[in-house]
Amino acid sequence: MTRPLELHPDRLFPADPDTRAIARTLYAGIRDLPIVSPHGHTDPHWFATDAPWENATTLLLAPDHYVFRMLYSQGVSLDALAIPHRGGTPATDPRAAWRTFAAHYDLFRGTPTRMWLDHVFAEVFGIDVRLEADTADHYYDMINAQLATDAFRPRALFDRFRIDFLATTEGAQDSLDAHHAIRASGWGGRVVTTYRPDGVIDVEHEQFAGALETFAALTGEDVHSWSGYLAAHAKRRADFRAAGATATDHGHPTARTANLSQAECEALFARIVGNRWDAADAELFRAQMLTEMAKMSVEDGMVMQIHPGSFRNHNAGLFASHGRDKGADIPVRTEYVQALKPMLDVVGNEPDLTIILFTLDESVYARELAPLAGHYPCLKLGPAWWFHDSPEGMRRFREMTTETAGFRNTVGFNDDTRAFLSIPARHDVARRVDCAFLARLVAEHRIEDWEAAELAQELTSTLVRKAYRI
Amino acid sequence: MTRPLELHPDRLFPADPDTRAIARTLYAGIRDLPIVSPHGHTDPHWFATDAPWENATTLLLAPDHYVFRMLYSQGVSLDALAIPHRGGTPATDPRAAWRTFAAHYDLFRGTPTRMWLDHVFAEVFGIDVRLEADTADHYYDMINAQLATDAFRPRALFDRFRIDFLATTEGAQDSLDAHHAIRASGWGGRVVTTYRPDGVIDVEHEQFAGALETFAALTGEDVHSWSGYLAAHAKRRADFRAAGATATDHGHPTARTANLSQAECEALFARIVGNRWDAADAELFRAQMLTEMAKMSVEDGMVMQIHPGSFRNHNAGLFASHGRDKGADIPVRTEYVQALKPMLDVVGNEPDLTIILFTLDESVYARELAPLAGHYPCLKLGPAWWFHDSPEGMRRFREMTTETAGFRNTVGFNDDTRAFLSIPARHDVARRVDCAFLARLVAEHRIEDWEAAELAQELTSTLVRKAYRI
Amino acid sequence: MTRPLELHPDRLFPADPDTRAIARTLYAGIRDLPIVSPHGHTDPHWFATDAPWENATTLLLAPDHYVFRMLYSQGVSLDALAIPHRGGTPATDPRAAWRTFAAHYDLFRGTPTRMWLDHVFAEVFGIDVRLEADTADHYYDMINAQLATDAFRPRALFDRFRIDFLATTEGAQDSLDAHHAIRASGWGGRVVTTYRPDGVIDVEHEQFAGALETFAALTGEDVHSWSGYLAAHAKRRADFRAAGATATDHGHPTARTANLSQAECEALFARIVGNRWDAADAELFRAQMLTEMAKMSVEDGMVMQIHPGSFRNHNAGLFASHGRDKGADIPVRTEYVQALKPMLDVVGNEPDLTIILFTLDESVYARELAPLAGHYPCLKLGPAWWFHDSPEGMRRFREMTTETAGFRNTVGFNDDTRAFLSIPARHDVARRVDCAFLARLVAEHRIEDWEAAELAQELTSTLVRKAYRI
Repeated sequence: MTRPLELHPDRLFPADPDTRAIARTLYAGIRDLPIVSPHGHTDPHWFATDAPWENATTLLLAPDHYVFRMLYSQGVSLDALAIPHRGGTPATDPRAAWRTFAAHYDLFRGTPTRMWLDHVFAEVFGIDVRLEADTADHYYDMINAQLATDAFRPRALFDRFRIDFLATTEGAQDSLDAHHAIRASGWGGRVVTTYRPDGVIDVEHEQFAGALETFAALTGEDVHSWSGYLAAHAKRRADFRAAGATATDHGHPTARTANLSQAECEALFARIVGNRWDAADAELFRAQMLTEMAKMSVEDGMVMQIHPGSFRNHNAGLFASHGRDKGADIPVRTEYVQALKPMLDVVGNEPDLTIILFTLDESVYARELAPLAGHYPCLKLGPAWWFHDSPEGMRRFREMTTETAGFRNTVGFNDDTRAFLSIPARHDVARRVDCAFLARLVAEHRIEDWEAAELAQELTSTLVRKAYRI
Repeated sequence: MTRPLELHPDRLFPADPDTRAIARTLYAGIRDLPIVSPHGHTDPHWFATDAPWENATTLLLAPDHYVFRMLYSQGVSLDALAIPHRGGTPATDPRAAWRTFAAHYDLFRGTPTRMWLDHVFAEVFGIDVRLEADTADHYYDMINAQLATDAFRPRALFDRFRIDFLATTEGAQDSLDAHHAIRASGWGGRVVTTYRPDGVIDVEHEQFAGALETFAALTGEDVHSWSGYLAAHAKRRADFRAAGATATDHGHPTARTANLSQAECEALFARIVGNRWDAADAELFRAQMLTEMAKMSVEDGMVMQIHPGSFRNHNAGLFASHGRDKGADIPVRTEYVQALKPMLDVVGNEPDLTIILFTLDESVYARELAPLAGHYPCLKLGPAWWFHDSPEGMRRFREMTTETAGFRNTVGFNDDTRAFLSIPARHDVARRVDCAFLARLVAEHRIEDWEAAELAQELTSTLVRKAYRI
Repeated sequence: MTRPLELHPDRLFPADPDTRAIARTLYAGIRDLPIVSPHGHTDPHWFATDAPWENATTLLLAPDHYVFRMLYSQGVSLDALAIPHRGGTPATDPRAAWRTFAAHYDLFRGTPTRMWLDHVFAEVFGIDVRLEADTADHYYDMINAQLATDAFRPRALFDRFRIDFLATTEGAQDSLDAHHAIRASGWGGRVVTTYRPDGVIDVEHEQFAGALETFAALTGEDVHSWSGYLAAHAKRRADFRAAGATATDHGHPTARTANLSQAECEALFARIVGNRWDAADAELFRAQMLTEMAKMSVEDGMVMQIHPGSFRNHNAGLFASHGRDKGADIPVRTEYVQALKPMLDVVGNEPDLTIILFTLDESVYARELAPLAGHYPCLKLGPAWWFHDSPEGMRRFREMTTETAGFRNTVGFNDDTRAFLSIPARHDVARRVDCAFLARLVAEHRIEDWEAAELAQELTSTLVRKAYRI
């Protein structure tokens, strides 16, 4: 028996009828606002070439670590899902992989992945039955047939999704060819890059040396001297700004910053490039570079995003066989108050600087992040991130930050995704959760209904544009 | 004036009428399922001898650290409650102790202990007035009179409670005589043991040396050599499996694991048994033994439970006067991501291994445990434990783990109790809280009602049987 | 357009109609109980002199770090708000400062500051329009006009607010002149002091040396010897008790305690007063002094309050320009279980000692504080503090402590404020949040309605009087 797939119009709204009615009204006021996506990981080549996507498996399943990590946790091999390993993509028929996924789709009950995918299936592809073993082929055929049409090519969907702004993320060693091609094409969609220099900052990354060589080649700087290395960053930041970037992004293991003297910087950098560093040097160098990036942001006006706290590639066996980004990144406890002080001692009171802080450690929302952002003019709170960009996670974010930091020290929603088709779904979930939160404040007479309506606009549109200088 | 005691049929269900109606329906579908209790601390001698319990005080009050710790915190001496100390049981009349308890029963308002005990009083003993000073004697007499009847002997209550499976916990140095007697008796109740080798692993325990001697005597192995010590564990694991055990349990101060070389293991073990160890050695040995136990579980199929994070016997004065398990164990912050990596590097991708993780530190639910269990095939999440096996604690567990780990990386409920009469009460509270959680997901249109009904079955019955291989 | 300002009678009550009705009934039973304020930072000179306050800005804006930290975080300079800096108060017209505040008042949507201030505006000053740019002058004029009347002088408001007991906080080096003047005046209001010796304990405070000199002068003791230093504390504690104090207060960076030998204490103290200490000595000395204070409390019966976990003066630039208490104190992670053990080993089982623990780290509520307070007779839990004395913060406090520690190991509400006019507002918010919490327990049939009514009385009145020995 197949079950119908319908998205309930009241999903994610509180059950209490009065509160639900308030949430409905708030949501009606912002549901159709264009999407602003200031941080994500879609592939800019999609928009440069506008080539059609191949099939449901390579588009929706294989790149989505939210999906395959859950299946893997329940004993499904990555091979069975056609996930590439270091030796290449396994010889799994993509239809067979899709069937495996469909047969396990009930694993996702209660997860945001289920809500996002159902939204994609129903709204983007117009499917009206639930995904399960019996409907796997129906889904696979229906999705693939549509993907082959012009209406489902990347630029057409970009327009259909009413995306106003979409930021991708490229490394300091990236040529930005895709972004140049987008601009050269004359297409009007606003797809811009973000400067993510981790690859030339994290000496513990296995490809650091190679990235540094490319960094030198692209900039013509002597990246083995401290001054040349900084000059190379300055040049590439200018390149990225020229390609539309308004922001930088920094994905460090910790939030640690440093404020070393010029001589200390030079000595540390000599150890880094001289291959005489230890783990403490690697961490100190990342820490110092956050401060350097902040100082450059004071100069060039780029918004700085700090994303700390992920233990990357925790599964040693899987990293050996399949490499990075295979669902084995695990959050760790993250400290901000001591960690950020050296950088804040330098730039904390700069009136025109914006630093957006993210965390994977919810215990810091009320204790550290909201008090910091509720004081320092340069600090803003990024939205609930990664494992926490879920209904409960976003609700906890609001409940634990609003009373100390208010709403205006936050920056709206980030979808942070490489799953392009799910972008409307993710923004819709975020809008619903914010409206549900605001509705409770109204129902409990903590704010007025007209204030909530203004706040819903701010959380959906105003704050993100202002914070990211869009 | 005495007040009536009635258990409201809607207790623990959300107040919103629509959500409550959904919860009622879900609960009706699972209320009468048999009890599976895979982890607890009842005394197997009760079922071996089937002797009647003595009185209300020794059965319900003196062994329950949830109860007497609260009374102690408010200035009631343990002597007044007839709690044994190292010098023996105080000369407190058990009726007087019961009266003291009754006079302070209002301390438990808002606690799960109150809900569990009221359930025992009303459902097991049929009492219809509330416990307070004025009803203390009525309670004491009524309970004692019933305990003297055959219907209240351990096996009769086991049947009346419809317990399908009950695991107790015995140390590696235990003879398992009670379990052998249960089997020899021909009684059909499924009461099995669990292998808990902490006593021969934790060299900081004051009875380590004696336990090791018994361990040697029971196995005939040279437990002072590393290989003989491991062989002794293997033998005893086999003994426990023969007595029905499907699981091991490990109650360490931290979750730390290690993966030492053979030579390092031998050197460390020589320090341990040679009494040349320090605190770091003791911790490292516990860490290595978790990995050894995991490797043995790969071989013999026993499910492994890890219960870290309790600071035992925190109250020095009380430990001196009264010994262990007197309500003075306090949770501490517990780290899992770094701690478990050495063990997971060895066994993390084993397809047939199950390791169930517990915590007393709720800040790791969303940050560490759900991401780990939502990735590693061998990891599952034990339910909210000890101080957190309460309505709010269980709700937080679901809210903070489901979105990342789903439901199927959890294992149902553990009552974890030595209070045998409260087992139905504890499972009933857990079932109600799970139904309340599922009802909210349905009311907010995050899952369908038929999905919630399936999940309620899984959370009550399917998952525990599968995880514990029952 | 101006908007009406009305305080909704159901504010902060749950939206569900049945639960709201229960909350209303509970609140009606305790709404009008007198205020007991056992911990705060009002200025006793107000009550000694009974001089009228100057204007809205110096009374409501400039001293309230909750207010100006939010404005500062959004780019408003402290000069524009007439906040004093080290060089004196800026030449900002107080009316202009008030207008700046009014124009940014919408920043406080969703914060407790907004609820407190609206209560002050509506209830204390009878204003019936919302604060915004257009009403700034109306507010300023109306407030100032009333402040100039006798009905708005400190003692008149003290009576109007029906305050039964108000504790201020003075340092060990304070002359207590204001408190002596209050007593000498014959006024009947019960305003008492609290012994806060941080200034003569924290050698890292920039004014330690001077404080120690005053300490010596006031006591006549040789405060440079360990025994004389302790004797000086004993004398000042007696002075404070004579001025009505029932409690001491200790605001340390961490909760660490120590239990050194006499010889170790003397050696440590010699380093402290000999200016040969390092940071570890400073921390160890604070730790030892908590134990010393606890031992003195056993002797003299003063209730001990421990407030750890604030990183003071985090913003280096602002500290240089403006000094302390400028909204730049940030909470840090705080450990209690290991930290308190040395002190508890000495005094933990003292029957007549009361130590009230506070935290800025909510992750310890369920994990550490509730288990500690639910066991040790001397420990009680202070209410949700500082950044957490908000509707969501107080709700989390109850949800995370009640099931383990019950209600009677808590001590009612602390307003902890220097904003005298907001004291009724803060107590009202706390009463409403407690009633909302209790109403949910009743609606979910976890306690009876008559129990909730008793608990509401306890949380508002009984527990605070008992804990603080009022």
